[in-house]
Amino acid sequence: MDKNDLVIISVDDHVTEPPDMFDKHLSAADLKTAPKFCVDENGKNYWTYQGMFMPSVGLNAVVGRLPEEYGMEPSSLEEMRDGVYKVDDRVNDMNANGIAASLNFGTCVGFDGGRFHKAEDKSLSLIHLRAYNDWHVDEWCGAHPGRFIPCGILPTWDMKATVEEINRLAKKGCTAISMNEAPTSQGLPSIHNEYWEPMWKALVENDMVTCLHIGAGHPAPHASMDSPIEAWITTMPMSVSTGAADWLNLEALLKYPNMKIALSESGIGWIPYFMERADFSHARHKAWTNSGFGGLKPSDIFKRHFMSCFIDDAFGLKNLDSLNEDMVAYECDYPHSDTLWPEVPEYLWKSIQHLTEAQIEKVTNGNAMRFFNFDLFKHFKREDVTVGALRAKAAADGVDTTPKSYSGDKPLADGEAKRRVVSGDLMKMFAHHAQNGANKAG
Amino acid sequence: MDKNDLVIISVDDHVTEPPDMFDKHLSAADLKTAPKFCVDENGKNYWTYQGMFMPSVGLNAVVGRLPEEYGMEPSSLEEMRDGVYKVDDRVNDMNANGIAASLNFGTCVGFDGGRFHKAEDKSLSLIHLRAYNDWHVDEWCGAHPGRFIPCGILPTWDMKATVEEINRLAKKGCTAISMNEAPTSQGLPSIHNEYWEPMWKALVENDMVTCLHIGAGHPAPHASMDSPIEAWITTMPMSVSTGAADWLNLEALLKYPNMKIALSESGIGWIPYFMERADFSHARHKAWTNSGFGGLKPSDIFKRHFMSCFIDDAFGLKNLDSLNEDMVAYECDYPHSDTLWPEVPEYLWKSIQHLTEAQIEKVTNGNAMRFFNFDLFKHFKREDVTVGALRAKAAADGVDTTPKSYSGDKPLADGEAKRRVVSGDLMKMFAHHAQNGANKAG
Repeated sequence: MDKNDLVIISVDDHVTEPPDMFDKHLSAADLKTAPKFCVDENGKNYWTYQGMFMPSVGLNAVVGRLPEEYGMEPSSLEEMRDGVYKVDDRVNDMNANGIAASLNFGTCVGFDGGRFHKAEDKSLSLIHLRAYNDWHVDEWCGAHPGRFIPCGILPTWDMKATVEEINRLAKKGCTAISMNEAPTSQGLPSIHNEYWEPMWKALVENDMVTCLHIGAGHPAPHASMDSPIEAWITTMPMSVSTGAADWLNLEALLKYPNMKIALSESGIGWIPYFMERADFSHARHKAWTNSGFGGLKPSDIFKRHFMSCFIDDAFGLKNLDSLNEDMVAYECDYPHSDTLWPEVPEYLWKSIQHLTEAQIEKVTNGNAMRFFNFDLFKHFKREDVTVGALRAKAAADGVDTTPKSYSGDKPLADGEAKRRVVSGDLMKMFAHHAQNGANKAG
Repeated sequence: MDKNDLVIISVDDHVTEPPDMFDKHLSAADLKTAPKFCVDENGKNYWTYQGMFMPSVGLNAVVGRLPEEYGMEPSSLEEMRDGVYKVDDRVNDMNANGIAASLNFGTCVGFDGGRFHKAEDKSLSLIHLRAYNDWHVDEWCGAHPGRFIPCGILPTWDMKATVEEINRLAKKGCTAISMNEAPTSQGLPSIHNEYWEPMWKALVENDMVTCLHIGAGHPAPHASMDSPIEAWITTMPMSVSTGAADWLNLEALLKYPNMKIALSESGIGWIPYFMERADFSHARHKAWTNSGFGGLKPSDIFKRHFMSCFIDDAFGLKNLDSLNEDMVAYECDYPHSDTLWPEVPEYLWKSIQHLTEAQIEKVTNGNAMRFFNFDLFKHFKREDVTVGALRAKAAADGVDTTPKSYSGDKPLADGEAKRRVVSGDLMKMFAHHAQNGANKAG
């Protein structure tokens, strides 16, 4: 086996929604109140919805840029590769990178659909959230059957509508949903409240995965506004540990042994420590905490329910025997700055060579297929979706992966000394961008 | 070699300050304004200082209790083992546990001396902070030469006084100081500000260690008030990663290659992942962040400057080759709820047996001695401070380690159903305790 024989499925990528996303999925009346894509006189893009202004059309979608420009946040579609928001170009970019299939989180709606939670008129939110799901499943994923794992979002502010939407998504063939790992940050009851019981039940009955993407409910904190930005970037994936520990203690996991949670963009190398620490904490404290894991250890529960994923994680893969090797998957994180596009196979091959072929198959595609009920090989012969085959197709199609220069908002002013970029610079850039847009929107 | 041959030094334990701590270290006038230990009519203890009320005399000092009572916070000295606040009893407890030497953080003054930062009259704070250091170094540690690694606190609100105190502590033979890993949380400039330069210089010139204890500047967040408390306990040590990433990016580490940072109560198993992630983030982002590590990788800097420590961490010790084996030390965390007292040697032996004798010597005592400039064997022959020798002494001295029942504040009301204890219960218990005391103090 060599890297060209790999079949790679990525369980965490992102899509920037195109301007016409709602056009085919809403009545004329509902389209009028839907999120609206706007272009200002400088060519900057933003969305407006129910009086809110959403400037971050690209959110760190820097794929394909010169590395020097990674810090310049794209503020219009023109500042990004076409593959970020056009599905045929996306598939070309996947081919060039040897990615057979991919699960995409939304951008302007929020990874977790949080934008619809923030809106005041929830009856409108419900209509537009469903239209997002229709666009995502039928139009984006549907354009290339077998190349995408659909992932819906839910109107969790309304439990009846949530259960209906789960059933509706399941009928469409959608096997995953994304939600905020800390619903209390959205003003909803905590996951330990009985409020959620109908949803757990519906998800399990439909054998659907709950994806918890980093950065929603418990984002990585900035150590200070003076902190060099690489410190923040370093701690991002591990920040999901707060939510992971909370979900690990969810009693529904004991009631529903088949419940499935994906920690999206989690990394894997810290997880054996985390499981051992959870076991230690339980052993030391159970006499007064009254907690229980159904006679199992917390690590048993973690291994049974939680899928984690990695971009580039040699230490974690070296310690695959300290994880559940059936619950680890690859993620590409296209088009965000951590993505190794278009060199994923090269990096991946380096860190998995010590594994058996069976283990390689599991972490590169088998686990993702089983966990997400996604049968790539129903659509394609294996030999047609290997790294080698996909890259040959990309070459034949003339997919250009040369890094390019794009414009975009910059963290440091032109002419400013080449000092280190700190957390405060990013905050200022985002605030400036938001203010600019708000002035236009206002 | 067997467990009785180990010589164990712990780089993280705690002391509850006794009521008379200031008596020998202040003039009559300064004693009048010093922190004052009080007993209310119910026998509860608290300290008052400059109008502040400090109820947590024990802060989780549950050592020696029945496990069912771990959640009951001690609110008076009588609710704790004598070893928590009496030095001779402490040494007896160390003997019973096979601990040769120990570094102790303060309690009512804060791990980081934060109490003196919160006080309004900083000229008084400075006087009393120095008296704390005198008590800690001369009286507590001085009572049993060679059994304690002294660790001072600093008046970092005043850089001139800070440098003077570093020099004063160094002359006393103190080789470590403890500070808040996020001084911005105390209203001070961030560690990246030139404000700190005189302090870095003084610490390096005196070859002193800077200890950053978990829980000060970036405490582990509670996922929600409904979150089972074991989730919070699980994530506590790893919460230091935010501060660790920030300090890893400190430019002073390039200027001072001998600067020494101890991540106190950090755990170790997550650190290889953290270093790999820091290297990845730097490699991917350095073109726009303008960061630099002096031509080295972030992991090289981490390995050169940062000591981490473990209580019980089989995964980390299994992966000692992915850490710097010269920069890992043992910690006991007496008298807090994570401590394995009085069975440390039994737990420790299980997780280090695969190491070479040289490695065992490093992680159990050698690294701590080198890093903290602490020469245990100047005071004792090796054979007199082994686990076997110390336990024989404890047995001869009749040290009783039988778990006992103590009273204390409880997280759940008497008669309440045996439901799981959640974050909100602890918050309520602390608030109740604080309110009670505030009423008395007021």
